[in-house]
Amino acid sequence: MNGLDRIRLHSLHDKVMPAAQAVQLIKDGAVVGMSGFGGAGEAKSVPLALADYAKDHPLKITLATGASLGNQIDGRLNEAHALARRYPYQADPGLRQSINAGEVMYIDQHLSEMADNIRHHNLPQINVAVIAATAITEDGLIIPTGSSGNSANFVEMADFVIVEIDNTINPILEGIHDIYVPKARPNRGPIPIIQASDRIGSIGISVDLEKIAAIVLNDLPDTSFAMDEPDTETLAIAQHLIQFFEAEVAAGRLPENLGPLQSGVGSIANAVFSGFEHSNFHDLEMYSEVLQDCTFQLIDSGKMKFASGSSMTLSQSCAAHVMNNFDQYKDKIMLRPQELSNNPEIIRRLGIIAINTALEFDIYGNVNSTHVAGTKMMNGIGGSGDFTRHAHIAIFVTKSVAKAGAISSVVPMVSHTDHTDHDVDILVTEQGLADLRGLAPRERALKVIEHCAHPSYREDLMSYFERACEKGGQTPHLLHEALSWHAQFQETGRMKAV
Amino acid sequence: MNGLDRIRLHSLHDKVMPAAQAVQLIKDGAVVGMSGFGGAGEAKSVPLALADYAKDHPLKITLATGASLGNQIDGRLNEAHALARRYPYQADPGLRQSINAGEVMYIDQHLSEMADNIRHHNLPQINVAVIAATAITEDGLIIPTGSSGNSANFVEMADFVIVEIDNTINPILEGIHDIYVPKARPNRGPIPIIQASDRIGSIGISVDLEKIAAIVLNDLPDTSFAMDEPDTETLAIAQHLIQFFEAEVAAGRLPENLGPLQSGVGSIANAVFSGFEHSNFHDLEMYSEVLQDCTFQLIDSGKMKFASGSSMTLSQSCAAHVMNNFDQYKDKIMLRPQELSNNPEIIRRLGIIAINTALEFDIYGNVNSTHVAGTKMMNGIGGSGDFTRHAHIAIFVTKSVAKAGAISSVVPMVSHTDHTDHDVDILVTEQGLADLRGLAPRERALKVIEHCAHPSYREDLMSYFERACEKGGQTPHLLHEALSWHAQFQETGRMKAV
Repeated sequence: MNGLDRIRLHSLHDKVMPAAQAVQLIKDGAVVGMSGFGGAGEAKSVPLALADYAKDHPLKITLATGASLGNQIDGRLNEAHALARRYPYQADPGLRQSINAGEVMYIDQHLSEMADNIRHHNLPQINVAVIAATAITEDGLIIPTGSSGNSANFVEMADFVIVEIDNTINPILEGIHDIYVPKARPNRGPIPIIQASDRIGSIGISVDLEKIAAIVLNDLPDTSFAMDEPDTETLAIAQHLIQFFEAEVAAGRLPENLGPLQSGVGSIANAVFSGFEHSNFHDLEMYSEVLQDCTFQLIDSGKMKFASGSSMTLSQSCAAHVMNNFDQYKDKIMLRPQELSNNPEIIRRLGIIAINTALEFDIYGNVNSTHVAGTKMMNGIGGSGDFTRHAHIAIFVTKSVAKAGAISSVVPMVSHTDHTDHDVDILVTEQGLADLRGLAPRERALKVIEHCAHPSYREDLMSYFERACEKGGQTPHLLHEALSWHAQFQETGRMKAV
Repeated sequence: MNGLDRIRLHSLHDKVMPAAQAVQLIKDGAVVGMSGFGGAGEAKSVPLALADYAKDHPLKITLATGASLGNQIDGRLNEAHALARRYPYQADPGLRQSINAGEVMYIDQHLSEMADNIRHHNLPQINVAVIAATAITEDGLIIPTGSSGNSANFVEMADFVIVEIDNTINPILEGIHDIYVPKARPNRGPIPIIQASDRIGSIGISVDLEKIAAIVLNDLPDTSFAMDEPDTETLAIAQHLIQFFEAEVAAGRLPENLGPLQSGVGSIANAVFSGFEHSNFHDLEMYSEVLQDCTFQLIDSGKMKFASGSSMTLSQSCAAHVMNNFDQYKDKIMLRPQELSNNPEIIRRLGIIAINTALEFDIYGNVNSTHVAGTKMMNGIGGSGDFTRHAHIAIFVTKSVAKAGAISSVVPMVSHTDHTDHDVDILVTEQGLADLRGLAPRERALKVIEHCAHPSYREDLMSYFERACEKGGQTPHLLHEALSWHAQFQETGRMKAV
């Protein structure tokens, strides 16, 4: 049977069973912890069999993961009405709809915090862990696949474990994971990462072998993520940022390699990182969540010397290139549990520059990352809060308008706050960059309106700000009008009357 | 001259000068870092002389401190129009007015972050440090007074230092400070505090003696802070919390001594801590910012075994009692720089229970700590964000109504967000306690309305929530109505029509 050779501890061979049999171990009401982060490294056969099973059996689970799952697994489980509760992050269009309809209870969480919340009883205990593996070693270590996520935590916490051996994963990945699980309080020490490239853990997940209840073999590959080519706006955003970094280095305010970088996921972030390709920066490092194509391009061009993340979310061609040339990369990347990749202690110690995408921000620099018009969940806060709060410099990027100008990404007041003005240092749109460090709200507003707002909204924003200032306050607002742009959008599909 | 004996390094005696002379070292436009935190441990003679000087000299400074200053120093400097910019926190009525009028640029900051922001060039460098001292040792160590704040950081960063020897401070305080300054990145290691009582630094501030430009002697004492006696509502809040803690311990979710506690400043927090007095808890620990009377009462009654803070803000009688019986306390308290007392790394490692006061919160658990009706600054976020984000359990307390019922502290949508729903676990009013851990927004709303809202607003909140749910969303809102309670309050002084 294809895959048995990956179970190198032979005494485990008799635990191999079909996915359809393994899922019967998962009971209605169970709290299930699954591997998967950034659409990579999820178990596939078991969750998909679970969705099938739920179609004609009463089954509602609480699903905890690393972060988003590939292969539309959230969507398939949702279609089967198998999800009662979901955390800490998702990015599936179908599940999003059920969440916004109030049918699935979604607990949007900082990615770094979920494991501690379970460990210390703020969230229910994990009943079963479903973990994708590249292999199980002779010593019984579970080698993760394309992400580390919360897998090690779930294995430690769960009553029992289902391991899914992923035959599609190139076995050469063994060795790139850095698995470390913080001790429970009160005997917890510091996490000893001093440099982005420090290895502090083992290459796989330790497991009490008694807890392995089933092993399933999988042949469905990770999802590929093709990135949009940068467009005029994302290129402009990248350029503003590169210029800012160059000026900071020239002024002696940033080290020559900038310090470790974090980047959110998506096309804008990808464009920004591609911007480094044509810059003079070198010896770059990442200490981030998701390693995208651009990470490997920067390694290829000699610009980046090391990248730490929790997952690899790659296009098909990039994935093939990386696997075919893995020797070039294996000492330059590391995949860590999200408790490490997103850890406040480490982020603050290393002095990370965090670059994340905003849904919208307001003139005072508060950022909405999650809720369209203040109500409808898009994906979730993900790691943006972990990085933004503790970063040396916290940057948010977005295009100044959306939907062909019908929506301004710069608004009088955000309709939902995920990141407060205390935490947000730099805002960038294709229009320009607003450096808000050390500024009071009234000063921030002038910068944001001048540098970030689209010209077609600039005058309206300035009018709002000036009229609000007449009423006074540290953060001037007109409460009747503050959310009127969003209300108008809800009613007409446009933020202002044509 | 009274106080010379406290300057035990005699070579410094010739730097002693009157405050009026020392202030001439402070130039127009200077960035001045002053000691002081929680209204304790501020320099007094120099700032007050500076206010006098500014009355008839052109002088506008940027003032950075630990946190709030006693002796109305912010007010006096503000009256003299000596403040151009102010951070990271203040609590003076007069300065508040100037801030809200847009006359003083106020940069409200997380208390733990300011030093790093200066050290790594997100804020301007400190030109002059003005630091209150109990003594200067034979070795030239500056022994702080009633607070540690950012004093050690300012001394390290400043071009020159003015030391103010505070003759009113009992010299027995020497030894209770734990002064440790993190290294600048990229060579920063972990902060080695593993238990609340660990000492990791020295008892005083090291200084390059060349930088001491002046020493001033002061005879004005620290301000005393009398606490209101607990009233019916604050007693009820305390009782709800104690019951919650007891239930958590009984369920095995919290250790018997709860783990280290943090408490915000003020009468409600004081009442809550007094609630422990009549509880069965023992071996309590604090890892907090400000040690108030209640801390020492709990030590007196044997309930509390150790308290770490950044300042002591005491009533006159408590201060006298503590100083007269200092032997009982000296091994049980420690005053640390706010980079340690409020540090995310340590807060998360220790698993702190954080109890802070909200100005208002909304049905989904977002908290406003700073802005009245979304616009007017009250004091500032202080350390509430440092603790809330990283706490094991983050709690906010407030009375359910203010101004004799004209204002509901529970609103449809907060008019300003300082703490997002991701970070807020427990809300408490005199009406009851809402445990929001692991709940989605719609579930949170039901708990908050049922357990926390005042009966006179409960129906209106439920009506809002139900009508919002009809429109859907992860966090249902009616954008036209979301801030209407605050708008109504601005117009009529009441949140709803009589």
